[in-house]
Amino acid sequence: MTSKSASSDSPLNKVLALVDARRHAAVAELSEFLSIPSISADPARSSDVAACAKWLADRMAGVGLSTEVVATPGHPIVLARNDHQAGRPTVLLYGHYDVQPVDPVDQWTTPPFQPAVRKTTAGTDAIYARGAVDDKGQLWCHMEAIRAWQSMGGLPVNLIVVIEGEEEIDSHHLASFVASHRDALRADIAVISDTNGFARGIPAITTGLRGLVYSEVVLRAASHDLHSGIHGGAVMNPATELARLLSRLHDEHGHVMLDGFYDGIVPPSVAERKGWASLPFDESEYARNLGLVKGAATLGGEAGNSTLERRWTRPTCDVCGLTSGYQGPGAKTIVPASASAKVSFRLVPGQEPLAVRASFETFVRRWCPQGLVADVKHYAAARAMCVPTDGPWVATAEAAVQTGYGVAPVLIRDGLTIPVVSLLQRELGLDTLLLGFGLPDDRPHSPDEKFDLDALHCGARTAAALYAHLNPTRPKPSA
Amino acid sequence: MTSKSASSDSPLNKVLALVDARRHAAVAELSEFLSIPSISADPARSSDVAACAKWLADRMAGVGLSTEVVATPGHPIVLARNDHQAGRPTVLLYGHYDVQPVDPVDQWTTPPFQPAVRKTTAGTDAIYARGAVDDKGQLWCHMEAIRAWQSMGGLPVNLIVVIEGEEEIDSHHLASFVASHRDALRADIAVISDTNGFARGIPAITTGLRGLVYSEVVLRAASHDLHSGIHGGAVMNPATELARLLSRLHDEHGHVMLDGFYDGIVPPSVAERKGWASLPFDESEYARNLGLVKGAATLGGEAGNSTLERRWTRPTCDVCGLTSGYQGPGAKTIVPASASAKVSFRLVPGQEPLAVRASFETFVRRWCPQGLVADVKHYAAARAMCVPTDGPWVATAEAAVQTGYGVAPVLIRDGLTIPVVSLLQRELGLDTLLLGFGLPDDRPHSPDEKFDLDALHCGARTAAALYAHLNPTRPKPSA
Repeated sequence: MTSKSASSDSPLNKVLALVDARRHAAVAELSEFLSIPSISADPARSSDVAACAKWLADRMAGVGLSTEVVATPGHPIVLARNDHQAGRPTVLLYGHYDVQPVDPVDQWTTPPFQPAVRKTTAGTDAIYARGAVDDKGQLWCHMEAIRAWQSMGGLPVNLIVVIEGEEEIDSHHLASFVASHRDALRADIAVISDTNGFARGIPAITTGLRGLVYSEVVLRAASHDLHSGIHGGAVMNPATELARLLSRLHDEHGHVMLDGFYDGIVPPSVAERKGWASLPFDESEYARNLGLVKGAATLGGEAGNSTLERRWTRPTCDVCGLTSGYQGPGAKTIVPASASAKVSFRLVPGQEPLAVRASFETFVRRWCPQGLVADVKHYAAARAMCVPTDGPWVATAEAAVQTGYGVAPVLIRDGLTIPVVSLLQRELGLDTLLLGFGLPDDRPHSPDEKFDLDALHCGARTAAALYAHLNPTRPKPSA
Repeated sequence: MTSKSASSDSPLNKVLALVDARRHAAVAELSEFLSIPSISADPARSSDVAACAKWLADRMAGVGLSTEVVATPGHPIVLARNDHQAGRPTVLLYGHYDVQPVDPVDQWTTPPFQPAVRKTTAGTDAIYARGAVDDKGQLWCHMEAIRAWQSMGGLPVNLIVVIEGEEEIDSHHLASFVASHRDALRADIAVISDTNGFARGIPAITTGLRGLVYSEVVLRAASHDLHSGIHGGAVMNPATELARLLSRLHDEHGHVMLDGFYDGIVPPSVAERKGWASLPFDESEYARNLGLVKGAATLGGEAGNSTLERRWTRPTCDVCGLTSGYQGPGAKTIVPASASAKVSFRLVPGQEPLAVRASFETFVRRWCPQGLVADVKHYAAARAMCVPTDGPWVATAEAAVQTGYGVAPVLIRDGLTIPVVSLLQRELGLDTLLLGFGLPDDRPHSPDEKFDLDALHCGARTAAALYAHLNPTRPKPSA
């Protein structure tokens, strides 16, 4: 399953030529996809989310896949498949058509749902829109590959496509969908393109992801905001108390102070750490790409770990949002009635999400003053994952990248969370190939999210090659 | 200048009868005043603020005062006067027609600018609207008194009325107005009704107010929010760092930790403290009136001081607002680009506002991590004030309250700030009588702000009596 040079009239080469020929048409169709505001977290957008599912299903049916839009109690799932044939491997392609919220919307150069192609700071061309890289653009690489194979007589593998609409809100209904479609989803390997290459020109295969616990704490003092002159100093201030509580989440070295937080962590192997140390990682450039106002001086976190290690293999606790009292212009002199914080924990292999969640609740109960009421709400909970770096699937993906990009990929991890990976392992026994086409400066979840047009093209070529290489029963192109 | 019983045909008694007769008409006209959304902090409301000034000036002209609307670079000031006569004392009445913002607007029982009369939890009737007690309703007590005297041949004193539109935003342009109208504002005493009685049935004269410093701190890390999975743990989190910074504002006993914060404080006299200790103050009832979710258990603040002392004579630091990252429904996994807090300090006699402001800046610079940028904005800065409890003006006000309410007032302080009091002292050498008609359950600055109709009526009677008693050259009603 390693890469072989292919004769120019091999089926794969003909497919690649078709992918190349649709380079511009692919951008236009992706634009249409990106213009649908499928924000799963916003109840006001639910009809847009449904419209997006319908649009995507129509496109899949259009390339000859049997397609259905499966309703859930939340947003629908698009399920599609080609004609399966015995003796071929079955690939489950997972993606998501929902996107993150867009605020602060005034920080977008062009409106988030009016896709615009323009130069990146690196001088490349990119398409800017919410969802450009996460995940509509990466999904579109596969759509182009599928379209090309289907127009050449059909994909060389049995394909099952599952595109959900709730990835950004913890995949609420995916587990029950998987459980109730176990037979229809039986496969040999899962493929997900929702991660990054290491850098421009250095494509990558991702062999590990962090898990996630996301919770919200609300401290309440009064039924309404109080005048800070008349009552200030006489009553507890929930904003002040929230700050005191949150200040206890880390010690002075950046270690997270929840009880048992670091218990059972499986560290990366010596070989992995060695490989990462040799990657060309420039902290100043990284800081510049992030728009850090004080450059690399803003890099920080847990002491004693390199920046890549802190991103890939160390657990974190981040405050994702603070809300209390008056937020408008000027001054309003109140003691707020309540104060709330959204808090996320990124987990690494060996940490148990439900244990972290319980420990956070214990932490809140322990430090909330007696005079306040503390409410804790929970959202996501997902384990970290690792894929074996020495198995056949990774080698297959390496070959596909070599064909798609013309260079060999590196093996990396990523700090983000794709909860479906552990779900597929648990429910269907499936390993997952994480073959991502994004770049580190793509700004997923942020204003001015984008996807390089070269990434769209090389990603489509890589996906086309992957479907060829995943079928070891077909004659090798050079044979 | 003490209260005397008046014959029923004395000028004051005729005036009081007129005030009594307009009891219902006064509510109707105040309703009109309250329906104008004169929120000075909101730039979108500036035409409403101007309309409110115009409405008020028309009413003053309607009772025979020479009235003008004086433009400022901000909101206008309504300036009015009667025909002054030699040999009479001159009284400067100050008030404000602007109001606080109304959020959270969904916590109002009826819309804040649709005044509604209904029962209070104490069973009395009250008018509910933004500005009901602060300060339109209290100002209206004087309007009713002025109207009655004017219809009886004229006020017994020389009156100057200054009603500004920027009290809730630090009286930005009042100082320059006072400086440029020094001659027109020459007076013997200032009167302000913008404070509270001690309780229902216990009217009060306020002999001291706290000062105010209001600032905002913004910590910035990045030009945009970052994905908390991809970058979390690698970069400083401004929301976390803001919480750590704010947690240092107090020690575990509630003492404010700014350098020099308590320097020079003048404590209340033993007699004042003794008087306050004898006031019927019920902490549980106070907590219930504030809507504290855990009742008196939510009372707190600086250790070693009673609740009344913490409100009246101890300086405070309160976080009035927190803003960072994602505040919408559900989960958004970001490291916020920035985090901000609005912070107020209430000051007591002896504290210097500009020194506290400077010390807060020093505090922020000291604790802000090197990798973040800290911006500090300043809004209000006002000294605390005290009026002498043994002078003639307080005795005059005591007599007026006795006439207006039928009971003698108590002498108290208030924790809030009326910056104009120190301005009038500094620029015009004027002492101020603080004769407030509000009640502790009125909720100024909060949803469901209200003003008891009895307070409106007794306040109007008290103001009418005050203008009589302030003129010692007139024959006493009983003489």
